[in-house]
Amino acid sequence: MAKSEGIPAPAVRRLSLYLRHLETTQARNHATVSSRELSRAVGVTDAQVRKDLAYFGQFGHPGIGYRVDELIARMRQILGADQVRRVILVGAGNLGRALMSYRGFRKKNFDLVAVFDNDATKIGLPTPELPGERIRSLDDLPRIVAEHDVRLAVIAVPAQAAQAVADQLAAAGVRGLLNFAPMILQTRPGITLSSVDLAVQLEQLAFQVNLGAEGAKISVDS
Amino acid sequence: MAKSEGIPAPAVRRLSLYLRHLETTQARNHATVSSRELSRAVGVTDAQVRKDLAYFGQFGHPGIGYRVDELIARMRQILGADQVRRVILVGAGNLGRALMSYRGFRKKNFDLVAVFDNDATKIGLPTPELPGERIRSLDDLPRIVAEHDVRLAVIAVPAQAAQAVADQLAAAGVRGLLNFAPMILQTRPGITLSSVDLAVQLEQLAFQVNLGAEGAKISVDS
Repeated sequence: MAKSEGIPAPAVRRLSLYLRHLETTQARNHATVSSRELSRAVGVTDAQVRKDLAYFGQFGHPGIGYRVDELIARMRQILGADQVRRVILVGAGNLGRALMSYRGFRKKNFDLVAVFDNDATKIGLPTPELPGERIRSLDDLPRIVAEHDVRLAVIAVPAQAAQAVADQLAAAGVRGLLNFAPMILQTRPGITLSSVDLAVQLEQLAFQVNLGAEGAKISVDS
Repeated sequence: MAKSEGIPAPAVRRLSLYLRHLETTQARNHATVSSRELSRAVGVTDAQVRKDLAYFGQFGHPGIGYRVDELIARMRQILGADQVRRVILVGAGNLGRALMSYRGFRKKNFDLVAVFDNDATKIGLPTPELPGERIRSLDDLPRIVAEHDVRLAVIAVPAQAAQAVADQLAAAGVRGLLNFAPMILQTRPGITLSSVDLAVQLEQLAFQVNLGAEGAKISVDS
């Protein structure tokens, strides 16, 4: 939702996709990869791959392509994925539970340290996904954020609660918010907000299918 | 993941955000809205708002701005949100259950008609979110898709099952796939694929927070 000049967001989005393909390639014991192969995996042109990677440094070796190990290491470094990043989750409903058990976070070196809810019937319940942890009251938020130096939070609460939760998280010192509530949130400067509206994703898809049916075309980069 | 020329994907993404703000404005009984107000709500410039809307037609009235009712009606029409669109869900795990109970889909005129899983212990279980329905075997897929003329499907299965499910959906006649599995899927021409990788969203956010901390900047449009 923020806007500014610099590295285009689609390039940053594709960086994650390149990394995922490189990890698959590494698992298959391939030592090098071409921009052509990356371009096919991610669905952009060769030239786009080279341009995207050039935002972050010079990686290619003429006649060889990209060295998989080297590129993975640099991309993880760029994405901060070479370090464990502590995350908290607010909202222990269906979506919150799905996020708790989502193994993709751990694979990317995210460490979910605590889950919060404001529902008194949920507070204190164990979280099987986080052994030894229990669902915490939002009253504990400032202390937990400070103790674990948490900079990232996932918001999985109903729309009407989301703005208040975002404000509490920002006040507690969290710097980045990943919001799943179907709601446009306001944040103060210094807070990065990324919103995932599941219905919007489906709406966009439906729109693209409609356009396709009518023979029109649309650019899709993620 | 597809790529082609035409309306830029960020403009299409913002269309959903404009629509959401317009619906809020309508609920507050405001009859008109300025590009300035829309630009603030969505986090882009005035000029960007006018350019985005111009892709889809001439909506503005000089000296008045945009008429909220008119713009909502046209945008719903453009997005296909003025008609009920039938959707099926494959995967009845934590994420699948969260998606079943997600009210945002209904609000946007999506009708979830059936839920599928390949786990024999889940098939036949009732789905409280879809009264009268039960979790179905994938064997029923072609029949249900044909009967309800389903064009959209949501994939919420583990990564290792996602490609096979995508292939089955395409073979059954589904045209648009919204994939939540952390996996790059291959699709044949004529199928529109949109992937939501929850870990990638968090990774991107972490990266933006890191860049922000170092004083660098990044464009974020969604």
